[in-house]
Amino acid sequence: MNLRIPGPIPVPEEILDEMARPMINHRGPEFKDLLYSATDRLKRVFETEGDVWILTASGTGAMEAALVNVLSPGDKVVNATIGVFGNRFGEIAEAYGAEVVTLASKFGTTVDLDQLRDTLKQHPDTKAVLVTHNETSTGVANDLEAVAKVVKGEFDALLLVDGISSVASMPLPTDAWGCDVVATASQKGWMLPPGLAFISMSERAWEAHAEARMPRFYFDASLYKRYYEIGQPPFTPGLSVMFAMDLALDKLLAEGMGSVFERHASIARQTRDGVKGLGLSLFPEDESTASNTITAVAVPEGVDAAKMLTLMRVEHNVVLSGGQASLSGQIFRIGHLGLTTPEDIQDVIDSLKVVLPQAGFTG
Amino acid sequence: MNLRIPGPIPVPEEILDEMARPMINHRGPEFKDLLYSATDRLKRVFETEGDVWILTASGTGAMEAALVNVLSPGDKVVNATIGVFGNRFGEIAEAYGAEVVTLASKFGTTVDLDQLRDTLKQHPDTKAVLVTHNETSTGVANDLEAVAKVVKGEFDALLLVDGISSVASMPLPTDAWGCDVVATASQKGWMLPPGLAFISMSERAWEAHAEARMPRFYFDASLYKRYYEIGQPPFTPGLSVMFAMDLALDKLLAEGMGSVFERHASIARQTRDGVKGLGLSLFPEDESTASNTITAVAVPEGVDAAKMLTLMRVEHNVVLSGGQASLSGQIFRIGHLGLTTPEDIQDVIDSLKVVLPQAGFTG
Repeated sequence: MNLRIPGPIPVPEEILDEMARPMINHRGPEFKDLLYSATDRLKRVFETEGDVWILTASGTGAMEAALVNVLSPGDKVVNATIGVFGNRFGEIAEAYGAEVVTLASKFGTTVDLDQLRDTLKQHPDTKAVLVTHNETSTGVANDLEAVAKVVKGEFDALLLVDGISSVASMPLPTDAWGCDVVATASQKGWMLPPGLAFISMSERAWEAHAEARMPRFYFDASLYKRYYEIGQPPFTPGLSVMFAMDLALDKLLAEGMGSVFERHASIARQTRDGVKGLGLSLFPEDESTASNTITAVAVPEGVDAAKMLTLMRVEHNVVLSGGQASLSGQIFRIGHLGLTTPEDIQDVIDSLKVVLPQAGFTG
Repeated sequence: MNLRIPGPIPVPEEILDEMARPMINHRGPEFKDLLYSATDRLKRVFETEGDVWILTASGTGAMEAALVNVLSPGDKVVNATIGVFGNRFGEIAEAYGAEVVTLASKFGTTVDLDQLRDTLKQHPDTKAVLVTHNETSTGVANDLEAVAKVVKGEFDALLLVDGISSVASMPLPTDAWGCDVVATASQKGWMLPPGLAFISMSERAWEAHAEARMPRFYFDASLYKRYYEIGQPPFTPGLSVMFAMDLALDKLLAEGMGSVFERHASIARQTRDGVKGLGLSLFPEDESTASNTITAVAVPEGVDAAKMLTLMRVEHNVVLSGGQASLSGQIFRIGHLGLTTPEDIQDVIDSLKVVLPQAGFTG
């Protein structure tokens, strides 16, 4: 199966093999070594001197952890959303009692920096800005560095980043850009199965944590920190993904993150060129903002998206994603996170070429 | 390694092999089949006609899910705790703003039914009772059926059960006993690696859910229910453990749960007889309340528990657990959940026989 969704991703076989390793005591010396060594390497990928915690959860769990660890009910947050996952970030904040000011960009576009400035000026009591680095639902990547310059340089709010589909695939130097909390998950560029999520915390995030009153227990960073000091997890972790992570991190760092990022950029260019070559249009309004981990394509007039996706899967063994929420039927998405080969993408393009006319494409 | 802790447990090799299966689309038809089929079989193990949700979390996450889905801040709950994990149940409830009335039994004993009655009479506005079925920290199993008769038969409060180390190892007929929410986790009697947790919800729990105002998102049962209806998870789940679960559930149900329970009871008797034969004492005050999944043993006078555990691990490749919190140094624990053979236990006893005198035992 050519699994081309924005995670889970096809995991290299040697990493999958690690998933079958026998269990160990998560409160014993072997685990301690693994925890410390994996965390050190995670920090290198996050490019942070701050903390990184390994959670047993999905990316949404990590988003919740990012919020509840630094905010209190009633805190004002600006949610600069550009898609479904950005909206979710705001929904979680609301569920926990934050006062959410929504700055919604049109799907297919990025955060407008002037609008962000205006919103923050109108709301000088903003405690935190929530932003998605790479919006999986629209295939658009924000210029996070520029967003961070506004949030941290001009306003000094906390910056909470959904880096779920970007960390380990696209540059996100956590400390250099001033991100206070970055959330991500294992089934993305890490070349791992789902089951773990990671969050970073800056010193500033810890200061906020000391005052933060949103209820939390399973995601309480204080517990992670206290147990980390004795080389243990607070709760029984998804051990198998940690075994696999041990190898995946070695492979990522051996390749070098610069090369990993370039590999993602290159495969994304190939994907965009391929779909354009078929006469299709990218969904992002400005191609320079198109994501390097997921390519969103507009469903052309007359094409039955559901039929197309089914034909791709059943006839060609290529699994793509449709659009989510209001984008259902409007777009389809090709995932290219992790170790994607040019042949994987060529297979997608070749199969689309056959299937599109069968699904009503006359372009 | 003879891993004899109360989870993670040694996972049978054929089940471990399933952990290495290639990824699939968690929003595709293969996953839908797996989700429905696994959930149906989970319900058979839980003995419930109610709902069971598969969470990507540890058991503690499932305890949090149990609370936040049926309670509101300010709700009064009685926490009938008999150990460290019972205490944790209360701590999570407090973190989310419940008014917790603690009914603490002495470590090594069970919930006293008369005290429970008295407490519930004193607090007629009790919304829920929290109780641990099998307290991993003390090796004591409550008579949950009797507790349930008081809570549901005499007072009609919600009954929230930590069944983490009991479900799939000890009888816990969820519906017959009237448990409203039961929480458990994969790394226990399910013969699986950690990474997933399961909670059941009764109709009564759903009624409470409709009124419940504790903040929640990642653990919100409404989202699990809504997505279940279209054969999807709300968030990317720990797929690999689900693959393994597919086989493990088949094996459990093929063996028959009655046989699984008897197997656990038999191996527990062997363990208790073995440690008593060494001249040691069980930690539970009344042997008839000793757990069938974990045997807690009092550290005898003069024995250095840490030294003993290290010698067991380093010299004999047997991994046991020490005591937690105030029980540190006071007890050690032998896990026998999942597929434990008589030889596994004999190896523990034989090794203890050698190690105990080396660690100061003169009995």
